[in-house]
Amino acid sequence: MSAYIEIQKTLQSIQALNHEKMEEAREHINTLTKPVGSLGKIEELAIQLSGITNQVYPVVTRPGIVVFAADHGISEMGVSAYPKEVTAQMVYNFLDGGAAINVFAKQINALLKIVDIGVAEEINHEQLLHKKVKYGTNNYLYENAMTEAEATQALLVGMETAQQLLDEGARCIIVGEMGIGNTTTASAIASVITGCSVEEAVGLGTGISNENRKEKVSIIAKALEERKPIRNDAIDILMKVGGLEIAGMTGAIIKASEKRIPIILDGFISTTAALLAVLLEEKVKDYLIAGHLSKEQGHYHALTFLNKSPLLDLGLRLGEGTGAALSFPLLEAATNMVKEMATFQSAGIANERQEDK
Amino acid sequence: MSAYIEIQKTLQSIQALNHEKMEEAREHINTLTKPVGSLGKIEELAIQLSGITNQVYPVVTRPGIVVFAADHGISEMGVSAYPKEVTAQMVYNFLDGGAAINVFAKQINALLKIVDIGVAEEINHEQLLHKKVKYGTNNYLYENAMTEAEATQALLVGMETAQQLLDEGARCIIVGEMGIGNTTTASAIASVITGCSVEEAVGLGTGISNENRKEKVSIIAKALEERKPIRNDAIDILMKVGGLEIAGMTGAIIKASEKRIPIILDGFISTTAALLAVLLEEKVKDYLIAGHLSKEQGHYHALTFLNKSPLLDLGLRLGEGTGAALSFPLLEAATNMVKEMATFQSAGIANERQEDK
Repeated sequence: MSAYIEIQKTLQSIQALNHEKMEEAREHINTLTKPVGSLGKIEELAIQLSGITNQVYPVVTRPGIVVFAADHGISEMGVSAYPKEVTAQMVYNFLDGGAAINVFAKQINALLKIVDIGVAEEINHEQLLHKKVKYGTNNYLYENAMTEAEATQALLVGMETAQQLLDEGARCIIVGEMGIGNTTTASAIASVITGCSVEEAVGLGTGISNENRKEKVSIIAKALEERKPIRNDAIDILMKVGGLEIAGMTGAIIKASEKRIPIILDGFISTTAALLAVLLEEKVKDYLIAGHLSKEQGHYHALTFLNKSPLLDLGLRLGEGTGAALSFPLLEAATNMVKEMATFQSAGIANERQEDK
Repeated sequence: MSAYIEIQKTLQSIQALNHEKMEEAREHINTLTKPVGSLGKIEELAIQLSGITNQVYPVVTRPGIVVFAADHGISEMGVSAYPKEVTAQMVYNFLDGGAAINVFAKQINALLKIVDIGVAEEINHEQLLHKKVKYGTNNYLYENAMTEAEATQALLVGMETAQQLLDEGARCIIVGEMGIGNTTTASAIASVITGCSVEEAVGLGTGISNENRKEKVSIIAKALEERKPIRNDAIDILMKVGGLEIAGMTGAIIKASEKRIPIILDGFISTTAALLAVLLEEKVKDYLIAGHLSKEQGHYHALTFLNKSPLLDLGLRLGEGTGAALSFPLLEAATNMVKEMATFQSAGIANERQEDK
């Protein structure tokens, strides 16, 4: 099967949420021993999870985390505070268990996959999933980031990796990334899709100066002028100004949506992958949960475009899937609430409101 | 020892945070494999926990949760959407494991204690801690809520219960409560201490109508006029317009502070207990962590007075300690970050920033 047809088949298989199950879940939640609505977003989350999974009592454990790593040709313009080599060095750190995502994954007992989808150098480690599409993207200031074939290949890698996590028992997918320079790429994508200005889409990344930030804005603006990505065409955007890890996350998101598995978005970069996925198929939006609000300012615009309200707001700006992993216990709490709480009837508690006087 | 002297001894033993350990923690966190500051509030939390516990590698497990239950004479004025009997019925629900706090406590593997500190009826259950000070407070619209002896006795009960949790291995204390009518009492206390108007301190509680809310405001205003609690005198406030479960939480907070144990506040009611604790001894403030921002509007004013920024904002308005329990994994994440992440040096990663151009 051609990559194109495989992607199309997946997109066409994505269904709407099950609104009957959501209604059933809502009715059940309203009988639990607490004032109606008093668990706020936890209740909304439970109802969304019912719609996603087709179950009044949804299950989200174990969570599966996939971290896609890739390099960005644009990083040679000095858009990041860190040198490009850090991408590969951090991949080794993930594989050796020393990064923040390892720590938070362990805390939530997650399955964790590290995927080389486009790191600029060879990485040798038995825990690594070797799925390199390309040795980093081209510098899109001067040429397209990748070919169409590379973009669709990276989407397929993402789909396959999500499927692998599901096969190993994951019931919730967290998408994370590592790639020096990728806030620049994410800013370009967010600006194209949401229509916010480049100025609004660009933040301080891993910690650049204000002066470097200005240069980052002008580099992105110039690249968009040169490449002219087409606003409603996700593949065109990926080819022209995309990133391989972003395409990988987009693929993972559409596969999880097809399989009716909730997806927790992390920060800015993963949310731009979601923007692309929603361009490919709008129903994807309903499968997404915003784990947190990143300090990177473009994230706010991307989440607003998706009409998503984040679970956490902790001033994070790390990526790797860390913010999503930190939010996971709230999904678990939502499912535990539905499954384990007593109802007013079963507990023999008066649920008749006093008359308004 | 008299209750008065025992409370005084505890208050006088509360020490300042250890700023050297905090500095040491900060320096260590800055060597971990992530951009400096990129884990936002998680990093701040880790540093606070070091200051509280005197340890660069703090430990917060197991968490201990104490739910104090008591009735409020003021509830006979119809200030709540639920009848008074629900207090005792919910206590049975806690004891039988069917309430939200049971579910969330189990998820975080917490020690959970249910304390009858002032329920209006007898409750028989072997899991209950029987520490009833009084069969519910008096209606403070007409007379003082309790005597000074009852207020100090309730503080002692809180101190003892916290000590019991610590003896059983708790390394973090979550204070929760149940008491029909207690948002009314909390609003009275918050208004007295923070200086916000009664109007600002009163919300919809468990779900009253706007009309009933207006009446709630005028009842509280009238009670404050009649009772004239003294703003800087915590015991006077408790006697005149307090609640027994609130006094219990205040006692637990000061005991945990004395023992250098972090305290996670839940919503509005527990935060008014913290206001009282801080009146008794200002150093208590540094031991407090705001678990979440309640939908009950007085909570915002109480947190602002304490200068605390909440970890979660999920539109919760349940109490019982639920919001605090939901935030606990973030404390655990902070301690895991410090303990388990690799440093740039140990992971062999370039941490030299590229020169600003």
